[in-house]
Amino acid sequence: MYIRSMLYFDCDYNNGCHPKVLEALVSTNGEYSGTYGGDHFCAAAKNAIREACEDPDADVFFLAGGTQTNSTVIDCLLRPWQGVVAVPTGHIAVHEAGAVEYSGHKVFTLPGASPCASEGKMDPSELESLLKSFKDDPTRNHMAEPALVYISLPTELGGLYSAAELQLVFETAHRYGAPLFVDGARLAYALAAEGNDISMPFLAAHCDAFYIGGTKCGALCGEAVVFPRAGAPDHFFTRIKQHGALLAKGRLAGVQFGALFEDGLYKKTGREADRLASLIPGLFRKYGLGREDHPSRTNQQFILVRSDILAELSSKVAFEVWQETPPGAPGFALCRFVTSWATVQDDISELEKVLMALC
Amino acid sequence: MYIRSMLYFDCDYNNGCHPKVLEALVSTNGEYSGTYGGDHFCAAAKNAIREACEDPDADVFFLAGGTQTNSTVIDCLLRPWQGVVAVPTGHIAVHEAGAVEYSGHKVFTLPGASPCASEGKMDPSELESLLKSFKDDPTRNHMAEPALVYISLPTELGGLYSAAELQLVFETAHRYGAPLFVDGARLAYALAAEGNDISMPFLAAHCDAFYIGGTKCGALCGEAVVFPRAGAPDHFFTRIKQHGALLAKGRLAGVQFGALFEDGLYKKTGREADRLASLIPGLFRKYGLGREDHPSRTNQQFILVRSDILAELSSKVAFEVWQETPPGAPGFALCRFVTSWATVQDDISELEKVLMALC
Amino acid sequence: MYIRSMLYFDCDYNNGCHPKVLEALVSTNGEYSGTYGGDHFCAAAKNAIREACEDPDADVFFLAGGTQTNSTVIDCLLRPWQGVVAVPTGHIAVHEAGAVEYSGHKVFTLPGASPCASEGKMDPSELESLLKSFKDDPTRNHMAEPALVYISLPTELGGLYSAAELQLVFETAHRYGAPLFVDGARLAYALAAEGNDISMPFLAAHCDAFYIGGTKCGALCGEAVVFPRAGAPDHFFTRIKQHGALLAKGRLAGVQFGALFEDGLYKKTGREADRLASLIPGLFRKYGLGREDHPSRTNQQFILVRSDILAELSSKVAFEVWQETPPGAPGFALCRFVTSWATVQDDISELEKVLMALC
Amino acid sequence: MYIRSMLYFDCDYNNGCHPKVLEALVSTNGEYSGTYGGDHFCAAAKNAIREACEDPDADVFFLAGGTQTNSTVIDCLLRPWQGVVAVPTGHIAVHEAGAVEYSGHKVFTLPGASPCASEGKMDPSELESLLKSFKDDPTRNHMAEPALVYISLPTELGGLYSAAELQLVFETAHRYGAPLFVDGARLAYALAAEGNDISMPFLAAHCDAFYIGGTKCGALCGEAVVFPRAGAPDHFFTRIKQHGALLAKGRLAGVQFGALFEDGLYKKTGREADRLASLIPGLFRKYGLGREDHPSRTNQQFILVRSDILAELSSKVAFEVWQETPPGAPGFALCRFVTSWATVQDDISELEKVLMALC
Repeated sequence: MYIRSMLYFDCDYNNGCHPKVLEALVSTNGEYSGTYGGDHFCAAAKNAIREACEDPDADVFFLAGGTQTNSTVIDCLLRPWQGVVAVPTGHIAVHEAGAVEYSGHKVFTLPGASPCASEGKMDPSELESLLKSFKDDPTRNHMAEPALVYISLPTELGGLYSAAELQLVFETAHRYGAPLFVDGARLAYALAAEGNDISMPFLAAHCDAFYIGGTKCGALCGEAVVFPRAGAPDHFFTRIKQHGALLAKGRLAGVQFGALFEDGLYKKTGREADRLASLIPGLFRKYGLGREDHPSRTNQQFILVRSDILAELSSKVAFEVWQETPPGAPGFALCRFVTSWATVQDDISELEKVLMALC
Repeated sequence: MYIRSMLYFDCDYNNGCHPKVLEALVSTNGEYSGTYGGDHFCAAAKNAIREACEDPDADVFFLAGGTQTNSTVIDCLLRPWQGVVAVPTGHIAVHEAGAVEYSGHKVFTLPGASPCASEGKMDPSELESLLKSFKDDPTRNHMAEPALVYISLPTELGGLYSAAELQLVFETAHRYGAPLFVDGARLAYALAAEGNDISMPFLAAHCDAFYIGGTKCGALCGEAVVFPRAGAPDHFFTRIKQHGALLAKGRLAGVQFGALFEDGLYKKTGREADRLASLIPGLFRKYGLGREDHPSRTNQQFILVRSDILAELSSKVAFEVWQETPPGAPGFALCRFVTSWATVQDDISELEKVLMALC
Repeated sequence: MYIRSMLYFDCDYNNGCHPKVLEALVSTNGEYSGTYGGDHFCAAAKNAIREACEDPDADVFFLAGGTQTNSTVIDCLLRPWQGVVAVPTGHIAVHEAGAVEYSGHKVFTLPGASPCASEGKMDPSELESLLKSFKDDPTRNHMAEPALVYISLPTELGGLYSAAELQLVFETAHRYGAPLFVDGARLAYALAAEGNDISMPFLAAHCDAFYIGGTKCGALCGEAVVFPRAGAPDHFFTRIKQHGALLAKGRLAGVQFGALFEDGLYKKTGREADRLASLIPGLFRKYGLGREDHPSRTNQQFILVRSDILAELSSKVAFEVWQETPPGAPGFALCRFVTSWATVQDDISELEKVLMALC
Repeated sequence: MYIRSMLYFDCDYNNGCHPKVLEALVSTNGEYSGTYGGDHFCAAAKNAIREACEDPDADVFFLAGGTQTNSTVIDCLLRPWQGVVAVPTGHIAVHEAGAVEYSGHKVFTLPGASPCASEGKMDPSELESLLKSFKDDPTRNHMAEPALVYISLPTELGGLYSAAELQLVFETAHRYGAPLFVDGARLAYALAAEGNDISMPFLAAHCDAFYIGGTKCGALCGEAVVFPRAGAPDHFFTRIKQHGALLAKGRLAGVQFGALFEDGLYKKTGREADRLASLIPGLFRKYGLGREDHPSRTNQQFILVRSDILAELSSKVAFEVWQETPPGAPGFALCRFVTSWATVQDDISELEKVLMALC
């Protein structure tokens, strides 16, 4: 039974954890265990992840949160003179308070001028152009080297790569010697999305590092970093510590990921959230209150909402205003509505009632 | 009911969380809330902490772990050309993988040559000597500036400052314009220790920043940073994020600290752990198997254990060998035995049985 | 008498120093002096610069080179969570090996989509748009803060701001609380350019920091950083040292800048170089071998050279191929020709002979 | 002819450059050359240095100054989680404004408790103890790794290692996998010292990196970094740039080192300076005004000067007061007197006259 003074579609981390995760925390609470991730809970969860990836040699580590994971992994995959390539809407390029630069590395942002940018996706030809231009530049030894590629799955805008698109980004990066790192803060919602053809083994086979988001996918906290094919950077344990990212009670993550990877729970929670999210744009259209900005098959829906109803809608529904006056849509605000494992069918029905009353 | 294939005295983070903390997590799990620490759980916990500190203006922030907290707070209390002063056994000087230096700052270590160093404490006259020598040095503008003082309460060696001693360190630091930061990773065990005369309000009044350890004092994770007298550094929220230390579900810490600060639970858990720990040295003496290295009134006991029984003891009891061949104690290994909220009287009785069988 | 096996137009640091600078080094070589910039040569040169700036309170420091100066000044004008705004062709954004990011700060690059970008200039409206969008962003405390504006005078592409344009950039930056830093690596060539209406006092009054380039303007090495209105950052001397940028024999810079600022030498050397450079595009046009890419009134000329003559031209003349296949100019390579104090009228005549023989 | 309002023994960088170095700068000033160290002057100087080292494969780079060289080389020889070991009086540990820490690395300081510390030398057994203790520490993956050894030749206190002592430090470091870096800011004065048995080839064979000081040994600026046996770190050119340490007119260093390595000038200038310095302690003894603190065979002499004459002596002679009240020498101040290529026999005679008048 959830307490709701209002409807919550503001994000996917405005809640506790999935009941099964909570159950696992409760049932294991009395056990003693090793520390710093060297415990039996972590060992079991790592094995479950390796199996899910069909990569028995994968190196797996648990960290506490997304920005921390991004900045630690990126710093460790780069040498000091190298930088990471992202799209302009990439989380590391915008919303991590300069954490990558704080660790000394440049974030190269691609132009984001091709159609796929509206979904937050990287255009492999823009990537190729940047990597090639560095390689061909006779002054390149005066320049930071673009040496790692960062994408999100799903993207910041809820977009999805197809398997073929992911493969193309991966192969483009590798053609220039750059590994690919996939930010999976919301991976559950990608894996479960309608029409998605990227499985976890496919993902593991087509990148050099990725993380399986916990915090936004049903855990209290925690992200599982996977380096396929035993690809962890040198001394990664020590560097996690140096980054302040080592959990003393590593089991906190181990227990939770153990639960998330039992009986396919991870994907299941994503699926229901995606399904419920997919109903939202229709409600706005139905009552003439807004329309989709771009299509999304994941748990984030971007809606151009009529500006005149914004104030009243906000008093009853929590959501995020992404852009108050988006270009090309006068009279509308760009808003984000997000579902999670905690969203239920009733939330959608309630939302409909609110919208109906507003039209 | 705890599962024990062996006895655990290896550390205070080898367990889940205190039952009351777990209860709070369970009972609040269904509620929606704000994010990044802007939620009602955090607000309540911060208020409880301000009250416990008797400082209504204190700035309070929740971070996930100790090293992260130390490196974030220290970096933000320093300007880029400044460094922090610690004792040679200080956690930041030894066991944080160079996290402070990674953020660009020097750790000045005092000689640690006076008697209080055996308990891991800072000698105010050594501190004064360093600060004065910098101030008097005509070449000081070619030097990193010692501009912050770091101590732990209790120390890494389980030692305690008296109120008078703390005040002296604080005043010495301030005489040279340096703020004082107190690492309270195990603060519960200090506050509750027999003979301790430092209350939380006294602590808040005699330092410029400190943290109330959660991870080692009954929480799953989390540390509460307190800047007394509204003393938070500029843009601290953004810098927490930049350090990768911002919890998306800030409530995870808020709920736990809310529970820890209800009805004095924090101090109570420390008290029982301290009491049980205090029984351990006597057991070793009683059976002629070892002796205290230095007296400790907190949950860490440092025992010189007869080397000949080490192997067998280790097969039944988890503890940490601190130094295999400590100077001045031939035939003994220096070992650390630690209790926590999870330790019960039975653990001590079981330990006695093991020791009895060994003598 | 210069030794020339070929003609040199490759850059403005392919030579020794201006004869008058050399003379000053020779004539002062036997004198003892203070160190680290605390000597009478530096004192005199600083005064000469303050006078030239008509700012008696200006703080002046001498550093050894351009990248060092940029990264030291930028790091010290920023707080750790802040970044610097530049145009996409800005030296700090491209050709400093990520030195700004290495010091922990983000380089924000503007789109560079307006016409002035072809000359390497910053569009104040693009600047305003970035600063405003940060200020208005409700998530800005999760973001690095654009808190300093960096431009070059002349720009990397030889372009010049008018006084009105500089003032507009300055006022735009200040409206959002951001100081303006002007990279004057080639300042002599801007001050002396035909039609330039920015004097040194005007520059000093319309920025918060700038540097007067020595290395590219007649010195062996050295840049003079000016913080108008006593605006040097806190502990700047120590931070120069921390950045490895403090000259032990500071006099090396002091003596040279003393000479450059005697009798207006600095501007004079710029004037002749600019005049000679201005003759180059005409030669290419005259012989049908190329045309200007964009107009430049400074010592750098960007010429679209017929690709078929490139190889032979290169065998006789040193210059830089900027882009082998510039967009929109099939059959041409974009090349840069640069003059300096060391270029003489004969060099231009010789260049004409070479071009004539090629057509 | 030197201008002297007073006698200068304050340091070895209070002057211009050696006349032969100046001559080389003058005679080459009119030549064009390549940039960033890729010029014929640098090529020739590098070859001369390789020959002097009897190491045809040595990588040689020229940087502008000492702190810059130390921090750049150390940063590049370390991986991010590693630190450098130094003696407590080491330049990087004290007088570089935390530049090494600024680049993210810990400086481990040895106790400096053995007799050789009075000369500023590293005790190989203290080094071994630190390296071994790290290697044996079961918690070492929570610690910064001591992974590079830094010594100075001569030391900060004018001390010299014998060939056997250097070899022992080198072998100790290598036994634990740590390379050795020798700071030769004043190398000329070591090579030329009476009784010194370390030749440049021996040095090159017994370390992994060293630099040949220019600034303090007769150049206007410049240090030559040598990585014996083609041992330069990856992408060192780019990292020099990233550190702001790349000279645009690399020839400035090339020309000067070319001159310093012609006809053994480098060592010759050291020899005369050492000889003149060696006369200073005797003068103080002769007139009962002071005594050596510790013996030095190089150009720095540390004298305990009678405090009562300090003021008057200072009015006629420039020198550095190292410690106003050195322990164990009441009534004396510890002072440093330094000679250089610019010191002449007359300076010593004048000093004697001043002392004579004071006694």
